[in-house]
Order: sequence, then structure tokens, then C-alpha cells
Amino acid sequence: MEQNQIKNSAITRQSEDFAQWYTDVCKKAELMEYSSVKGFIIYRPYGYAIWEQIQNYLNKRFKETGHENVYMPMVIPESLFAKEKEHVEGFAPECLVATKGGKEQLDDNLIIRPTSEVLFCDHYARIISSYRDLPKLYNQWCSVVRWEKTTRPFLRGAEFLWQEGHTMHATEEEARHETLQMLEIYDELGRDVLAIPFSKGRKTDKEKFSGALETYSIEALMPDGKALQSGTTHYFGNGFAKAFGIQYQTKEGKLENPYQTSWGVSTRLLGATIMVHGDDNGLVLPPQVAPIQIVIIPVAANKPGVMTKAKEIAKQFKDAGFRTKLDDSDKTPGWKFSEWEMKGVPLRVEVGPRDIENEQVVLAKRNTGEKIIVKFNEMVEKADQLLKVIHDEMYKKALSYLLDHVTEVHSMDELNVALEKGGYAKMMWCGDQACEDKIKELTNATARCLPFNQIAFDTTCPVCGKKACKVVLFAKAY
Amino acid sequence: MEQNQIKNSAITRQSEDFAQWYTDVCKKAELMEYSSVKGFIIYRPYGYAIWEQIQNYLNKRFKETGHENVYMPMVIPESLFAKEKEHVEGFAPECLVATKGGKEQLDDNLIIRPTSEVLFCDHYARIISSYRDLPKLYNQWCSVVRWEKTTRPFLRGAEFLWQEGHTMHATEEEARHETLQMLEIYDELGRDVLAIPFSKGRKTDKEKFSGALETYSIEALMPDGKALQSGTTHYFGNGFAKAFGIQYQTKEGKLENPYQTSWGVSTRLLGATIMVHGDDNGLVLPPQVAPIQIVIIPVAANKPGVMTKAKEIAKQFKDAGFRTKLDDSDKTPGWKFSEWEMKGVPLRVEVGPRDIENEQVVLAKRNTGEKIIVKFNEMVEKADQLLKVIHDEMYKKALSYLLDHVTEVHSMDELNVALEKGGYAKMMWCGDQACEDKIKELTNATARCLPFNQIAFDTTCPVCGKKACKVVLFAKAY
Repeated sequence: MEQNQIKNSAITRQSEDFAQWYTDVCKKAELMEYSSVKGFIIYRPYGYAIWEQIQNYLNKRFKETGHENVYMPMVIPESLFAKEKEHVEGFAPECLVATKGGKEQLDDNLIIRPTSEVLFCDHYARIISSYRDLPKLYNQWCSVVRWEKTTRPFLRGAEFLWQEGHTMHATEEEARHETLQMLEIYDELGRDVLAIPFSKGRKTDKEKFSGALETYSIEALMPDGKALQSGTTHYFGNGFAKAFGIQYQTKEGKLENPYQTSWGVSTRLLGATIMVHGDDNGLVLPPQVAPIQIVIIPVAANKPGVMTKAKEIAKQFKDAGFRTKLDDSDKTPGWKFSEWEMKGVPLRVEVGPRDIENEQVVLAKRNTGEKIIVKFNEMVEKADQLLKVIHDEMYKKALSYLLDHVTEVHSMDELNVALEKGGYAKMMWCGDQACEDKIKELTNATARCLPFNQIAFDTTCPVCGKKACKVVLFAKAY
Repeated sequence: MEQNQIKNSAITRQSEDFAQWYTDVCKKAELMEYSSVKGFIIYRPYGYAIWEQIQNYLNKRFKETGHENVYMPMVIPESLFAKEKEHVEGFAPECLVATKGGKEQLDDNLIIRPTSEVLFCDHYARIISSYRDLPKLYNQWCSVVRWEKTTRPFLRGAEFLWQEGHTMHATEEEARHETLQMLEIYDELGRDVLAIPFSKGRKTDKEKFSGALETYSIEALMPDGKALQSGTTHYFGNGFAKAFGIQYQTKEGKLENPYQTSWGVSTRLLGATIMVHGDDNGLVLPPQVAPIQIVIIPVAANKPGVMTKAKEIAKQFKDAGFRTKLDDSDKTPGWKFSEWEMKGVPLRVEVGPRDIENEQVVLAKRNTGEKIIVKFNEMVEKADQLLKVIHDEMYKKALSYLLDHVTEVHSMDELNVALEKGGYAKMMWCGDQACEDKIKELTNATARCLPFNQIAFDTTCPVCGKKACKVVLFAKAY
């Protein structure tokens, strides 16, 4: 009873108001807090720790694939920013601009970086001169600023944390390979770490990054039926290299412009993780990124021996390498259950006097609520297994939802029905941007991607009736 | 011969022009590069990797002592910044200010954070209400901007990377303990990781942080005789807490303001490390932070079996957990020796046909140039020992230099002689700021700190002749 009261008072139900549920969870699970600066959020310890887990995984993968971390200036002179025309047009409307330094007006205003292509290009122009200098495989962890009017925690903000990779290659082939390789790493981050199945593919020209020749993305599907772009990789050709005068001498002594990529994921991944897995009791965190994987809650903690045993158990889990927390506060077990459910800890360990008598603990899975009784001496091994099971169950549940929400459509009516249901309308498209615009105008859905798997299932475009040549996924999106 | 030419052409000698030597090393060792934005440098992979090692060590120590990482906005509204008077006066002259967002002028200008006390206080005011919420032990890794006119790589820049801890405590005693505990951790970072002996102590009121009640610092002594402030910790009392309305209810139900600290070290530590250990051949990196601890250089690499063996050796070191690099490029061994000396790699492994015949390698220590021949089967163990020896030798050398450059002075003449020699003039002081100002005016030296060890060695202040009560270290400083 008490426990239910807490739950009910804590957060809005998903079915009542999904957007409000999301904001409630972000705050009540102490992932973030609003600051006094509009659109800028505070990443609280529990939220930031999830991001650190993502960083650890990606840093390992980036290093394995030969990338190095660097740090570039956080500001870009307006004059430098203007060098690549399409790029500056795309970003200028959402730039925060510094005009004063100390007591003086700046001669050349400084844009707080919204992305760092031009800074990397400016640097590469100085350090690349020979084929021996290639490839350059740099990555940067930082925050970027985009002056957005409408903001939501982790999904869209004036400032967000991300990594941005910027690479230079001798050949087009190598750069194209890099673009797809990094998309694959992001996809694996979803599958193996966040338990999120992504839809992968190429962006349409309308949706691609300002200045890129090709953009690829991973898209996650949210329980409200909307897609969330969760990461992108871009192939630039040598357009920026030409604009910035980046040249290298080939083995044969010729001067050429190198080929470029960039790619990034951001704290938006936290938003995806919260929405894909969460429920009416709060967060449900994938074990790989949970700041606390196992929480130990003593029951009847004042009874002799209980707290001692709980500490012993916590130590065993900790020593075995799990991120473990013993909740030895003076709150009631019911309160503690609710609190740690809200925070999405994958596995709860309950131990009380009767358990101790029977040399056992109760393991409770956050994702299903299922309880398993195990003996002390099997507890660590069982927890290890269960965390893997939890990950798999979470992934499968998300995948099943995704597969249920991809609908092949052959007409505008079917498109409307599919979008009404939520998820992706999978459509054959003529490739004409006018048809893409029309769908946006009529339904507010956008082309999320051209999936890699391009098996035609119809011959005409439902919008214009002309010959269709491309499979495309449309959806409403964040 | 060839090797010497490389060395000579690469960098200025320390004895010729120490400042130029420093800049040469920063660039030639590829630690940093200038950007197109005045005062903002690029942290290149080799420099950034050293910073990452420092981060790893500190994150571990911070976690052990109960601290949590967070991320706060990178901008501060001018109106919020103005809340603590002393603080804003100290920082206003060096702020970079954003006045435009998108196409509009901002109502409340945004200062790019020069430090984040006010952001943390603003946040703490929202999340602290009870004694149960204390202590709050937060740390942030980020970059900050200070609009400096004269900049030098890592030592003084418009933007630098740092960590800033900001903590809140129920009692003055606990906050004071925190202030000194963090200073101790910084000191241990120097001793155990950077091989730098710091001088520790309290800052004079003239030199303390704007808004703090007390500032403590670690100071490193550079080979040119100048001190480099390398980290600070501050005790604030409850001044900011009052200004920002941060209150908590005690167990007894009373409302009180908590007590605050902040503390930080920055990429300035890279500058200290470069200068304290470097020599005319370039960088000399302490093994704990060296991005590459062991470099393997095949000699006569085209001879049968040499490259295969070199790869095998590299694998053995790597598998043993050392940060290892095999230089299999087509440059000559002489070039490679010079290059990796420039980059300060602590241990070089040479292997050629005769070594292979004798089942041995040559280990060369970067700090002393000493060469040791060891058998293959003892190589890994020996390298492990040598890296520890190198660390100890580097620390002892720096300590010996420091001890040689602390001169007790009893008169203004002696002060001048000591400062002329370089290093610290250790002086008894009356405590009057007028005397401190006078020394600055006459010698350009500043009070670096009041060391913890306050054993009086004289009775009068050499400046005014009045009764002296404090031991203070004066030095010229960066």
C-alpha cells in the first residue's frame, strides 16, 4: 500500500501522458535538473554516470579501430565558419555568438561550436602535407551549443554532450568505408550495450547534414510511435578539403585533396534509453550502462545479523566486479524498493532474517519483476547470468515492438493508417523531394532513412504515382 | 652525426632561451598546435593522452573519497554571476560574453564559464534542503574560458581543460578537512604520477581566490627558477551559500547555511611536467602518464628475422600491460631514436641481428641515456623495474633541484640575491600586505604560499623591520 502510494505520487503514467512521464522520470530518477539558463540542463551524477559508461565503451571501440582523442577550441571565428557555404547556412540560425572579450568588442565574433568540422579542417590544413600523414582518425569528446527554442531533457537542448569524430583519408573508398564502419559501431553500441535495436540507413538529400555528400543514421523507435535519430555518420567527399586548402602529396608526387568523414552520438542516447525501456515505475536501465547494477536491500534490518550479512553480500558482489550499492539508510524496505525501481537498477537483492536462516537471498529483476531465490554460494554466479538475461530480454522486447511497428504501405491511405498506429511506414518512393515534402506537409512525418536492405515491394510512388525506385522509412520523429 | 643534426635542428637549447625551448618542445613533440583562434590551442593526441592519464588517476582518487562527476552548463547569465560581489569583481575583466543567440540579442548576456562556483551554488540551492542531503561532493571535467591577452601553451590560455570540485558540508570542520584532503591528493598526484615535488601551503589574502576565505596551493619550481602554481583548493565558509540562499534543516530542525569548498587542477600540469623534466633532446615523460611507455625500434630491420622478432617483443610488452609502440616505419634507427627521445618515451627497446643471436635486447632509459642489455626472458620484468626506477630518479632529481633553490633570507639584499639565483626566497614576514606589495614592486616576485611547516627562523620582517610572525615563500612566477 505504502509502496503504491509512492509510485503513484512520483510520476505520471505512460498511458496518461507519455511526454510528462518522460520529464518526470528524468527528474525523479535524478538524471538531470533544470538550470537557471534556459535550455541548458544539469547532468546529475546518476545521469552523467550513464554517459560515462557509454564513453568507456566507445573509447575502447574507437581505439581498437585506430582513432585518437583530441581537443579543439570551443569557439569558431565567424570568418572561418563562413568558408563552407552550405555548412554555414545550415547552422547560422542556431548559433550562440560571443561578441565581447574582457571589456572590448571582438573584431571577429566567436561562435560557440555547434559542431567542429571547420576547426578540424583548419587544423588538418596545417598538419597534413604528405600521404604519410594519412589517414588522420581523430575524435573529440565535448559539449556543443545550438540555440534551440524548444528544448527537452537529453532530446533537444541548447547544450549537449557528444563525441564528434573527424577523419581524413587518401581515397574515397577508405573514407566511405570509415563512414559505414562507424555506423556499425554505433549499431553495436545499441545492440550490445543499450539493448536498443536501431534501424540503419542513408538519409535522403533533404535530411542530410549541411555540407555532407551523404549522411547515414541510426534511428530508434520510441513507445509513443515516434522515431528518434540517435547517431549519424557523414561522408563529405573532398568539398571541405577544397574549401580549406587541405592537400597532400601522393607517393607519385601529385597534390590531391583528401576525403573526409565525421560522425557523432550524443547524450540523446540517454533519452532513447529512458524511453525505450522505461515503465510506469520509472527507469529500466540496461545492465551494461547502469551506474548501479545490483542494489542490496536488507529486510528487517534491525534484526540481529541482517545488516552484517547484507554488508557481506554487498562486498561479495563488489569484489566480483559488479557495480553494487548497499542501501543501509533508515528508510523502510518498501520505500527503498520503489526508489531503486524508479532509478532502474537491473537487479535487486533482498535479504532478511528468514533468508539468512535458509542461507539464501531473493533476486528481483527490474525489467519483469520476477523474483528468484538462490543460495548464498550460488548468488554471484546467478546474478551474473541474470544480468545477461535481463539485457537479452530488454533487447528482444524492444526489437519485437520495433518489428510490430514497421508497416509496408502502398497508398497514401495506408501511409496515414500506419502513421496513426505509430512507428515506420515503409514505402516505395520515386526519389523526388517534392513527394517527400508533400508527406511532411500532410502528415508531419519525415523520411527517417533509406534502409540498407533495398528489396522493392511495389512499383509506384504512392504520392505521385510515378515509378518508385527506393525503399524508405517514414515516421514522425523527435 | 645524423642524429645530432636532427636534434640540433629540432629545438632551441634550454641554456640559450628557455622560453623558446618550451614552445619548441610543445610543438615538436606534437603535444599541441596553435589554432586560428587567438589564445585557443589544439590539444593534439599525444598531449591529450597525457591529460587522459591524469584524469584516470584523479577520477580513481575522487571516487575513493566519495566524489561524483556531474556536468553543468557552460554559460552563466550575467545576472546570476553578479550575486557574489568579490567573485564577480575578480573575474569580470577576463570574461568572454555571448550577446547573440540565433538572430536575436539576448536579454541576459551569457558569460562563458571562467569557473563554475555560481552554477553549482544555484543548483545546490535547489537540491539541498536537509542534513540528509549533505555532504554534496561533486566534481566536473570541462573547459573554461578566461580572456587573457598574453597566452602560452598549457600555462596561460584563453581556454583550458580542468576539473573543478565543488562541495557542500554541514560543518565548517568537515569543509576545512575537505579543502586540505584535496590538496593532499594533488600533492600525491605530483609525487606518485608526475614525479613532481610540490611546495604546499596557504595563499596570502592578496593572492587568494576571489570570494574564498582561504586558498591553498601546490607550487612547482621550474628550471628557470620561476614557480608555477599547479593547483588550488579553496575554503569558502558559507558566504556563497548565504548569497545564493542555500539552506538545510539540521537534525534538530534549525535552518543553517552549509559550508563550501572548491578545488581544481588544469592542463597547466602538462606545462609543469614538460618544464620540470625536459632536456635539450625534448620531452622526458614520467612513466605513469607517458602515452607510450616503451617504444621498440628494430635495428637493421631489413635483415631476416628482425622485424618478426620486434613484433613478438612488442606483443610481449603489450600483453604485460605496458603502453607499447613498435616503430616499424621506414625511417633510419637514428631518426627514430631522436623522434622518440623528443617525445619523451621513458624506455626504448633496441633489437638487431646480433641481439637476436644473443637472445637479448638493449633497454635505453630516456631520463639518463643509460643502456642495459637483458636476455629476452628477463626483458619484461626488467622493464617493469626500470620504469619504477625512472620515476624515482626523475622525482629525486626534481626534488634535489627544489631543495637547492629554497634560500632562507633575512634582509632585502639577501632576498634579491636569492631571487637572482632563482627559486624561493624563504622569508619571515610581518603579515602586512604593504610589505608584500613592496616586494612585488621591487622584485616582481609574489608570495607563493605560507608553507604548512611554520618554524620561525628570524624575528623581524626584512621589509618594514617590524615583528615577523609568518614564514612565507616568495618567488617570481608564471
